[in-house]
Amino acid sequence: MEDKQKIIIREVALRDGLQSEKAFVSTENKLALIDALAGAGVKYLETTSFVSARAVPQLRDAAKVMARARRGGIWHEVMVPNLKGARAAADAGADRLIVFVSASEAHNRANVGRSISDSMAELDSIFSLAEQSRTPVAAAIATAFGCPYQGPVPVSDVLAVARQFVMRGADRITLADTTGMANPGQVTETVSHFKEHLPDTALCLHLHNNRGIAMANLYAGYLAGIRIFDTSLGGIGGCPNVPQAAGNLATEDTVFMLESMGVDTGMDLAALIEVARLLEKILARPLPGQVMKSGPLESGG
Amino acid sequence: MEDKQKIIIREVALRDGLQSEKAFVSTENKLALIDALAGAGVKYLETTSFVSARAVPQLRDAAKVMARARRGGIWHEVMVPNLKGARAAADAGADRLIVFVSASEAHNRANVGRSISDSMAELDSIFSLAEQSRTPVAAAIATAFGCPYQGPVPVSDVLAVARQFVMRGADRITLADTTGMANPGQVTETVSHFKEHLPDTALCLHLHNNRGIAMANLYAGYLAGIRIFDTSLGGIGGCPNVPQAAGNLATEDTVFMLESMGVDTGMDLAALIEVARLLEKILARPLPGQVMKSGPLESGG
Repeated sequence: MEDKQKIIIREVALRDGLQSEKAFVSTENKLALIDALAGAGVKYLETTSFVSARAVPQLRDAAKVMARARRGGIWHEVMVPNLKGARAAADAGADRLIVFVSASEAHNRANVGRSISDSMAELDSIFSLAEQSRTPVAAAIATAFGCPYQGPVPVSDVLAVARQFVMRGADRITLADTTGMANPGQVTETVSHFKEHLPDTALCLHLHNNRGIAMANLYAGYLAGIRIFDTSLGGIGGCPNVPQAAGNLATEDTVFMLESMGVDTGMDLAALIEVARLLEKILARPLPGQVMKSGPLESGG
Repeated sequence: MEDKQKIIIREVALRDGLQSEKAFVSTENKLALIDALAGAGVKYLETTSFVSARAVPQLRDAAKVMARARRGGIWHEVMVPNLKGARAAADAGADRLIVFVSASEAHNRANVGRSISDSMAELDSIFSLAEQSRTPVAAAIATAFGCPYQGPVPVSDVLAVARQFVMRGADRITLADTTGMANPGQVTETVSHFKEHLPDTALCLHLHNNRGIAMANLYAGYLAGIRIFDTSLGGIGGCPNVPQAAGNLATEDTVFMLESMGVDTGMDLAALIEVARLLEKILARPLPGQVMKSGPLESGG
């Protein structure tokens, strides 16, 4: 990260948001969204994932997207589930690879079909590949605040996974509340624990709104010193089969909150809302984001 | 308030939630909801409003509801827009009257068709009526964090209105973010200002989620010392004509958050979720609340 004190909003709609959408979003539309997001000030984008087309058909155009995506001023970060994906992402010119493991054994097995230690075993080859191609690697820890299968996840388990990543050279650790189980007190404690035990590692929060309190968790993270947040345009993500089920926090709602507090996000809120409306048009359904419905304060109540 | 340190969740779905619902909810259904809410631990209920049936047809059964509502262990608080309403509410056995004025002149005129000073002028007669009938009076200040017509509302204006209420004997002041314009920094500052200038007055926060950050505002209020919150079952409120437009904060989401943090709300979350589902059935549409969709943590992801 260039400057840990600046607020960084990582836009994850193209990957975490779209991956659960059944209807394929055309490569043209993905590129139009990337272009418009860049125009609204987005600098860090989780652009796609080099994952099996069978597992995630929505992202089967990862190589095309990367080949044609606007470059200037954007970090195209790409999630990779394994060495094969990492090689493809590096070849495609990813600006950063994102590797991930769950802090919960049960979730890791459900998510990628193998144990945490098997996931970790593949990391060495990914990190050495990344080193050869001079590609930075960041890491995300899923179920960092609780697991739908296992229940509570001890912070010591989360820290142990993080240390494995940092030891291998990860330049950022994302704590992901994969199914929206965190609460603000827990976020405060976990972040403080990380700041104490891994003080030199850039920390990112990735929050899901399954239980309606993700924005309070984000605010707790901000108060505890987090300066990097994953958010998703329009609040997409989660499962589109559940009516109104919440996904990620909406980028534009988060930007509204932080900017209202006098925090500089580097984003143009009005432009972001326009991109959220474009996304709504592309997905042809109302999105969970609220600011796109109520408007920023300038437009009244 | 019996004990200012205990968390009090005031349930406002019956009044603020239902008042904007076009289809009339039968008195039987209102009573069923009140009963079920009491069973889930609700002790403070904004039960109805004695307002003109022309202005708010949904609440035209205020007297019937009050006559038949379960009594044991519940404070039936009733909103009154004027002396006539106050008399009717006191006659109906309201346990507390709720009067209200906007901190913004423009909003007060739009809301009740008269100036703030005209609204205030009627307060004396309401407070003396309440004294005669030994009914406590609490007060709500609308647009306390911003006005859709006027824009920013200086905290000094909000405090000035609050002083008028306290001087007349209001035993609680509610700061209402009527159209969801507040941010956590502002909530922190406003609450601190009130704690400094009106240290002996019980303060309540009433938040709307128009811009997706109300739960962060609630958490900021909690950190600043607020122990009384207005919330609405299922998150109803706001304008049902706008698809997925947010209303109040959902009671069950708020209870989930506070209980997850180890704060005792006195509520039974599982029972609350059942009542929210009953409400969803009565209103025959999906409600904004999230915990009712994802379930509490015990039920998994």
